Amino acid sequence: MNGENTALLTDLYQLTMLQAYHREGMSDTASFELFVRKIPPTRNFLVAAGLDQLIEFLESFRFSDEECEWLGTLGYFSQDFIDYLSKLRFTGDVHAIPEGTIFFQNEPIVRVTAPISEAQIIETRLINIIQLQTMIASKAIRSVLAAPGKLLVDFGLRRAHGAEAGLMAARAAYLAGFDGTSNVLAGKLFGIPTYGTMAHSYVMAHDDEADAFERFAESLPGNVVLLIDTYDTLEAARKVVALAPRLAAKNIAIKGVRLDSGDLTELAKGVRTILDDGGLTQCTIFVSGDLDEHELSRVLKAGAPIDGFGVGTRLTTSRDMPYLNCAYKLQEYAGRPRRKRSKGKESWPARKQVYRRYDDDGRMLHDIIAIEDEPGLEGEPLLRQVMAGGKRVGARETLADMRARLREQLQRLPVELAALDKSSTYPVLISDGLQRMVQHMESVGL
Amino acid sequence: MNGENTALLTDLYQLTMLQAYHREGMSDTASFELFVRKIPPTRNFLVAAGLDQLIEFLESFRFSDEECEWLGTLGYFSQDFIDYLSKLRFTGDVHAIPEGTIFFQNEPIVRVTAPISEAQIIETRLINIIQLQTMIASKAIRSVLAAPGKLLVDFGLRRAHGAEAGLMAARAAYLAGFDGTSNVLAGKLFGIPTYGTMAHSYVMAHDDEADAFERFAESLPGNVVLLIDTYDTLEAARKVVALAPRLAAKNIAIKGVRLDSGDLTELAKGVRTILDDGGLTQCTIFVSGDLDEHELSRVLKAGAPIDGFGVGTRLTTSRDMPYLNCAYKLQEYAGRPRRKRSKGKESWPARKQVYRRYDDDGRMLHDIIAIEDEPGLEGEPLLRQVMAGGKRVGARETLADMRARLREQLQRLPVELAALDKSSTYPVLISDGLQRMVQHMESVGL
Repeated sequence: MNGENTALLTDLYQLTMLQAYHREGMSDTASFELFVRKIPPTRNFLVAAGLDQLIEFLESFRFSDEECEWLGTLGYFSQDFIDYLSKLRFTGDVHAIPEGTIFFQNEPIVRVTAPISEAQIIETRLINIIQLQTMIASKAIRSVLAAPGKLLVDFGLRRAHGAEAGLMAARAAYLAGFDGTSNVLAGKLFGIPTYGTMAHSYVMAHDDEADAFERFAESLPGNVVLLIDTYDTLEAARKVVALAPRLAAKNIAIKGVRLDSGDLTELAKGVRTILDDGGLTQCTIFVSGDLDEHELSRVLKAGAPIDGFGVGTRLTTSRDMPYLNCAYKLQEYAGRPRRKRSKGKESWPARKQVYRRYDDDGRMLHDIIAIEDEPGLEGEPLLRQVMAGGKRVGARETLADMRARLREQLQRLPVELAALDKSSTYPVLISDGLQRMVQHMESVGL
Repeated sequence: MNGENTALLTDLYQLTMLQAYHREGMSDTASFELFVRKIPPTRNFLVAAGLDQLIEFLESFRFSDEECEWLGTLGYFSQDFIDYLSKLRFTGDVHAIPEGTIFFQNEPIVRVTAPISEAQIIETRLINIIQLQTMIASKAIRSVLAAPGKLLVDFGLRRAHGAEAGLMAARAAYLAGFDGTSNVLAGKLFGIPTYGTMAHSYVMAHDDEADAFERFAESLPGNVVLLIDTYDTLEAARKVVALAPRLAAKNIAIKGVRLDSGDLTELAKGVRTILDDGGLTQCTIFVSGDLDEHELSRVLKAGAPIDGFGVGTRLTTSRDMPYLNCAYKLQEYAGRPRRKRSKGKESWPARKQVYRRYDDDGRMLHDIIAIEDEPGLEGEPLLRQVMAGGKRVGARETLADMRARLREQLQRLPVELAALDKSSTYPVLISDGLQRMVQHMESVGL
């Protein structure tokens, strides 16, 4: 299949609009901004992610000759326009909130400033790239908050929505503070630590469960984690204890056990007792199976002696909110501010900046959305220039940078926003200058 | 990014298990089956999809030399095992329910029979491929049922979970009966008709809405559909009427208008009246914006004069149920049936077939899940062999074949199951032979 980074991964209307702009000779500079209209009801804040993939897409943006030829067969486009498309590259500027930054409703997280056709044609893939990782990072951070100090591993590739969804979810979860992923390709592409042991099928393929454990341990002596819920979990824990001395004689330690079904709290307690009584106090308990942040919180509050969690489907599909209400809107064209006035979908015009202000303890106090060059505003500006003239500005950030940024921001997040349940809404103010601009536009019918 | 069809798109535990099998010399034939444990509460039936992509993946399955080299750096795997991986190909048989087939809980939709390592290593991507398209086809068919005879177009690429999700959702929706997609690359890859006109930004970039309409029409004279909700929908409809004669003089007809916000029923009625009064009786009304099958049903029942719908985010993310509770389980190894007994996750053992029976009117009566070679069973067998010895069997099906199959099946679906709301549950019976097998396995502790 491949080819996902081709310019052709777009909506047809982008091309029909471009043909109109081309025919009309409209090529002035436009600014579009991507923002989330509303924070989902089950989130208190969002975490920006996916910018690195966006920059890669924009730097390599082009239609291949073969694609141009195919477009010609559709009957929509003139040869003159197709020739123009074949030479089209992205030459614009991009400002964005760095990955790993906490943000809120209506705040521009990516701004593209470019000749209007360039800023328009990239819309579909830009949203597609940024919304996926932002959604997953914003989901994953909740597991991080629910299970502080526990090992957290992304297990969600199989039920993610395709290959790219699985890869980018692994990246976004790691960015948000997960320790690693089961996804091998994500490990290779992004340098994320990989985790994994055995499935039920491995146990089932052997005639005897204890035999399966022993053979597996001998095959992977440095990383023995045994799945103990295929038949009877507590019985299997006793088999682990019985097996331990034989393995110890071969210098193999049983590092942990995994539970994937049943009442995790009760089973973990039972297993812990069996392991401890058997002298395996260093053997950890790792659990998985239909988990999300609420379940993590629940079992830990119930005192389950669990050391780590594999979080899968509900993480990588963002089960409770599998999309963000986001939009990429024209805010300025040919030096004049623009805004959408469709009912319920109004947007704030002009190129904007977000300023974040902190209280004396360094906690986030409120954000202000303002016109980019509006004078007299104080606070930390969140948007930075990341591309100039179609090229990346500055050094490429590492995932470690982004993880550190988010950890630092969590320290400054108002405590009530770190709760899993919906709490108070963080104040996002609109600057005087921006409010005056909208009033003026309304007064002249724009 | 690319590379999504590499064998490395898997969970680490598949590789650690394979190393154990390799070390143990376990290479007997295994059968695994993919099935959905439960039909989601908001669905009455499911539609199989994604098999063609699975066959492509299996035919090209391999680890590249560079990937093998990287695996060696992880410290988990012996060089002997990595050499084995570098030569590993999929040589097994696959039986499956054809794409476009209606199916229900616990019914095997894909069965893989191969040396155990080959059948195991493909698990993650197999689920990843089949669940995505099956989920989307099962969602899309609901819009088809809700809006019979209306033009239905997939608009969901931007908020789909990445590139592959958008492409495969376009394919699955078309398979389910949609008329086309806005996704240009999906059009090229799968031959799906593409649709699209203009965005709000196009209107906003012009100083005058009527001027934007006229220029757009001149640029795409054969396919003029105008977006009329950027400012005031009814006012814009009047501008369309005023513009029509000028365009007619240039031999350009206004084919349709699109609404993307507001009260769609009321606005569509108002717009229809304005268009009809202005003589534009042939101009169609197409709507979009946060739609799903329930909204389609609601506006059509309210008498909205709408000719077509763009269904986006809620379709391609399967908003109400963004994953299927599916599993790929070992059912037989070395000639002996196996089953998982984990609480709440028990599976039916052995290689199985599904027989579908019809009443005298040709309506579906019930399905029976049976042992593959169980004698004395009547009905239409749903699983067919699609791969033998690692190669595709028979001709590749076209999307037209699959669409026709599903249309035919809808005619035979019990009427109550075609409702959007949860109705009666379709009977899925377990054959006597399969029940006896489980009783026997239980009696001997398996």
